[in-house]
Amino acid sequence: MNTFGRNFIVSIFGESHGEAIGVVLDGVPAGIPLAAEDFESDIKRRKSGAKGTTPRIEADIPQLLSGIYEGQTTGAPLAILFKNTNTRSSDYELLAQVPRPGHADFVADVKFDSCNDPRGGGHFSGRLTLPIVAAGVVAKKIIASQVEAEGNEQPCAIHAKIIELGGIPKGDDNRWRKALETAEAEGDSLGAVVECTVSEVPVGLGEPFFDSLESRISHAIFAIPGVRGIEFGDGFKASAMKGSEHNDPFGPDGRPVKNGAGGINGGISNGEDIVFRVAFKPTSSIAKEQNTLNFVTDKMTKLSVPGRHDVCFALRTPVIVEAMAAIVLADQLV
Amino acid sequence: MNTFGRNFIVSIFGESHGEAIGVVLDGVPAGIPLAAEDFESDIKRRKSGAKGTTPRIEADIPQLLSGIYEGQTTGAPLAILFKNTNTRSSDYELLAQVPRPGHADFVADVKFDSCNDPRGGGHFSGRLTLPIVAAGVVAKKIIASQVEAEGNEQPCAIHAKIIELGGIPKGDDNRWRKALETAEAEGDSLGAVVECTVSEVPVGLGEPFFDSLESRISHAIFAIPGVRGIEFGDGFKASAMKGSEHNDPFGPDGRPVKNGAGGINGGISNGEDIVFRVAFKPTSSIAKEQNTLNFVTDKMTKLSVPGRHDVCFALRTPVIVEAMAAIVLADQLV
Amino acid sequence: MNTFGRNFIVSIFGESHGEAIGVVLDGVPAGIPLAAEDFESDIKRRKSGAKGTTPRIEADIPQLLSGIYEGQTTGAPLAILFKNTNTRSSDYELLAQVPRPGHADFVADVKFDSCNDPRGGGHFSGRLTLPIVAAGVVAKKIIASQVEAEGNEQPCAIHAKIIELGGIPKGDDNRWRKALETAEAEGDSLGAVVECTVSEVPVGLGEPFFDSLESRISHAIFAIPGVRGIEFGDGFKASAMKGSEHNDPFGPDGRPVKNGAGGINGGISNGEDIVFRVAFKPTSSIAKEQNTLNFVTDKMTKLSVPGRHDVCFALRTPVIVEAMAAIVLADQLV
Amino acid sequence: MNTFGRNFIVSIFGESHGEAIGVVLDGVPAGIPLAAEDFESDIKRRKSGAKGTTPRIEADIPQLLSGIYEGQTTGAPLAILFKNTNTRSSDYELLAQVPRPGHADFVADVKFDSCNDPRGGGHFSGRLTLPIVAAGVVAKKIIASQVEAEGNEQPCAIHAKIIELGGIPKGDDNRWRKALETAEAEGDSLGAVVECTVSEVPVGLGEPFFDSLESRISHAIFAIPGVRGIEFGDGFKASAMKGSEHNDPFGPDGRPVKNGAGGINGGISNGEDIVFRVAFKPTSSIAKEQNTLNFVTDKMTKLSVPGRHDVCFALRTPVIVEAMAAIVLADQLV
Repeated sequence: MNTFGRNFIVSIFGESHGEAIGVVLDGVPAGIPLAAEDFESDIKRRKSGAKGTTPRIEADIPQLLSGIYEGQTTGAPLAILFKNTNTRSSDYELLAQVPRPGHADFVADVKFDSCNDPRGGGHFSGRLTLPIVAAGVVAKKIIASQVEAEGNEQPCAIHAKIIELGGIPKGDDNRWRKALETAEAEGDSLGAVVECTVSEVPVGLGEPFFDSLESRISHAIFAIPGVRGIEFGDGFKASAMKGSEHNDPFGPDGRPVKNGAGGINGGISNGEDIVFRVAFKPTSSIAKEQNTLNFVTDKMTKLSVPGRHDVCFALRTPVIVEAMAAIVLADQLV
Repeated sequence: MNTFGRNFIVSIFGESHGEAIGVVLDGVPAGIPLAAEDFESDIKRRKSGAKGTTPRIEADIPQLLSGIYEGQTTGAPLAILFKNTNTRSSDYELLAQVPRPGHADFVADVKFDSCNDPRGGGHFSGRLTLPIVAAGVVAKKIIASQVEAEGNEQPCAIHAKIIELGGIPKGDDNRWRKALETAEAEGDSLGAVVECTVSEVPVGLGEPFFDSLESRISHAIFAIPGVRGIEFGDGFKASAMKGSEHNDPFGPDGRPVKNGAGGINGGISNGEDIVFRVAFKPTSSIAKEQNTLNFVTDKMTKLSVPGRHDVCFALRTPVIVEAMAAIVLADQLV
Repeated sequence: MNTFGRNFIVSIFGESHGEAIGVVLDGVPAGIPLAAEDFESDIKRRKSGAKGTTPRIEADIPQLLSGIYEGQTTGAPLAILFKNTNTRSSDYELLAQVPRPGHADFVADVKFDSCNDPRGGGHFSGRLTLPIVAAGVVAKKIIASQVEAEGNEQPCAIHAKIIELGGIPKGDDNRWRKALETAEAEGDSLGAVVECTVSEVPVGLGEPFFDSLESRISHAIFAIPGVRGIEFGDGFKASAMKGSEHNDPFGPDGRPVKNGAGGINGGISNGEDIVFRVAFKPTSSIAKEQNTLNFVTDKMTKLSVPGRHDVCFALRTPVIVEAMAAIVLADQLV
Repeated sequence: MNTFGRNFIVSIFGESHGEAIGVVLDGVPAGIPLAAEDFESDIKRRKSGAKGTTPRIEADIPQLLSGIYEGQTTGAPLAILFKNTNTRSSDYELLAQVPRPGHADFVADVKFDSCNDPRGGGHFSGRLTLPIVAAGVVAKKIIASQVEAEGNEQPCAIHAKIIELGGIPKGDDNRWRKALETAEAEGDSLGAVVECTVSEVPVGLGEPFFDSLESRISHAIFAIPGVRGIEFGDGFKASAMKGSEHNDPFGPDGRPVKNGAGGINGGISNGEDIVFRVAFKPTSSIAKEQNTLNFVTDKMTKLSVPGRHDVCFALRTPVIVEAMAAIVLADQLV
């Protein structure tokens, strides 16, 4: 249930305010060079601190507990641990009776018979995306080594970025900055759209129907908290196009002249860039007052969610989206 | 690979022009009344014949080979077979050297070393959605029996419909008709958006992260040929909303006052209607000429795809979308 | 639940007296030559007719419904169907209230709320081993093609045979014949031990711990009805040996000088013959009277199981044991 | 690959001489009381120190990293860590060129391209049975809570014990002691047979064919290093019995008068005690000299395996066998 993959298997565990969070990776091929330093860059990209993100800073140093010997993967499961150090649990105690709108507080309470860890969202916390980013780092290395082993010159390159923030398309960083400042001043929050491009993909990854590449990628992407939609290639716009506009005829070099399909036909990679976009909701925790119910008193109340929160958590998600794409592709390649 | 589900397991097989297509369903609880007639209604909804869909008519009568005794499911696997009767393979023979734009011809050829069955798209054919619809019928019955067994008054109701066709929102059937006629006259094709609503959903289905309900649903939906995107609740629009707009605060009756989350929080059903929209591309096979490559002569050529095709295959898909939603929910409930 | 395998996936369905039984094979590589004739030899080995086996004869002709085109596998799922033709259901109707000792009648009734198909054991019937044998035929072809593709000169060879019948070791066929005749005359039945040897196995198949090769093989073998035990290499005798006797030291040619481990160390094939033995119980259905309970009258009764039964069904099992070994190895190799 | 289970999922990781070993348990129901003390008894049973077992002593104190809140399981994954503290890696360094007979040294080297961790057997070490025992503790608690929830008075009780040591049946402890002393004095080792009995089992666990209860149990049992065979009920002796001897007719109380089937018919528990026996080989690491090959010099050599080893590691295994049985049953019950 907290596990993904058929041959490269990712299992995450942990809670926001527990002792530690982590991930176990099974099916990692032997002989891939790997060190704690390899995780720094991607973990830093995910880390809080940027404009519009929460001031909570965790050290986020990965402990590699197993599966590595003399600087290389051994073929045995790789366990990666992150200690939780900077927790302020008291922030959350008042919320037991007033489930935060947009959060999993209510469903977690029902599903787990009130036994779930409520501190900081417990196991539902966005903090669990940290081990996912770590899994992504390993997945990217697996992809590079597998693609190389098959004689391709270029390994797949996976790159995700924000292309729209608070409804404002990329291009005018000034407008983005102002939108973030306004939202912060109002105690409100913003969402964003992330676009991910995977280039140099081998032809033939994926399957028709249930294991289509879109099925696998969307499965992984919707595991990221706060995702509201995903689209490939022309996406939702394709449904308003004619066949003669959306189709990708082959050109004289044997490659399609456009990429409306987003690199996938019949569930299988066609060698063009895989392109997909992910819609992230605005941060649910806002300081701005919301009218909601106190489930204990059964009376309506005003809630201003305390604690430290991102104005736009989506700013941190491109590296998480990349990690998920990498996890899916590594699972296809090993 | 052609299998979906953890506890209710759906495995499909067959090719468009082979002897038969079918599905094996494992994990079906014992004691559910089931007869061939139960499939009629949904199969009819999927069947061709409507304006904008192909004139190819198959009998589409399900043969229930196993798993049923004296009109009830036995708990053993249910195998359902559909004979292929109305095939005109010669239509497709000329296409071997000119892969049809938008189809899987090219990737199938590469992935399966030219051993794939090319007739009518072979295993990639939309005809495989017929056993999926059959699986959906069984899944709907499972859901009803499971929800009833848990003492709920109302079983889940799953309903999908076209809400946008060729870019035209629902409401003006005349404009839809004209758009279809125009596209047909031009030898072109249209796409559509399908909206699916699942009501009376028990709270607590799904898991955080990798088995989130959105992950499972999107996985199944992208297994339908021709899907370009999926969104839940406010969907892509959520990324342009503020938190104070998108959040669903609880009202005095303990239920959220709106449903921007589409019935799912933290990957888990919250009891509200699950609402999602699916973008379907326009039919890839069009009579209109396309400039594309002949891979044998290595020269550009004009292609007018022969054979019988839907102007808008998406018109048939609401029942397929329902089937996929039902398959996911049945898998959660058994 | 009726499915086995991670990458080569076998799903069986059907009942003894239903319309048909069959199997769906997913993950079959493309390009393997396959025809209905390829199944004849193994199906014949399993078929009834020999001394000590039931006179019920089914035609047992496989229908290849999908996954094959122009005499080769296509990479799409392979569905194989066998029609049931020669059924005499009335034999079994009297047994509803007196569950046959040694059969699944009682547990099936409890587990499936009396909805199971009781005719001829329904889904529990040994007849389901027919699609397993068919899956084994395909698996053997996969193994040959995969091993060949990796440049090995010799494909794995899998061979199983009876080494003990009714407690009498192989060697004196006259004693075996007499034991069968005596058991038949007494309306009683016999068991047997089957030994299976897989030679020319690549080094490195299997995993430590949960996917050890012994775990996978034993999992598949215990899916054959009537198995009571399995042992590898020195087997149970190993527990009475000293380390210096049981160990397999390496000899001057780099290969172990003996094979007490049965070709597997640490869960992984070591290149030597994989050798295992399987204990089959005597046929449960016997004409000889048994004192047992009538669950309806709640009184003890004498039961002589009517119908046609093998004196020693284990005589048919070597080809089934081979099929299971082949299925496991094919799953490792694809 | 290092994972077992469908609904209660056990994933192990770690190496004998690495930083830590551990296990992640997914699918643990919420609300089960659990503390570090609960693990003490079973871990102590597995721990070394008894006559015939190695003097290496680890603290073996479990760290519960996640999935527990206020003394109860939360429904989120449970991660359990054991630090490795008492390692003497230098013992193993000389063995790189002389693979130890009976060990995985050779296959690990081939399978993992010489990248495996060789220290103390690395990931193949019997030390990995420690997290398995920990998983078993949780599994036993799940079983108790699930069986209780279904209204049964008695939870399943799982009990395993040595019934034969070095070929000597249980009964004469003096002969066992002497056999151990003799083997130790000779630098040799002994094997044993463990019998496991599960009582108060609900009727209906398991499935026909591929998920038979025997299939699942044997799969898990062969994941324990050093297992050579498993048999249920009458086991291998059943193959020498007549049907009239081996069958279990029902008695006047509705229960079988004997238990030759070992509590399982048609792959499904029948309510009687599940009884199975497991054959363990003698410890592979012996001080006694073995003639074997040096793979570097390509010359035969004499090997006396240095380091600390159990004369009979099987003495520690009853609690591991219980853990595996519990893991299988918990997976059926959640």
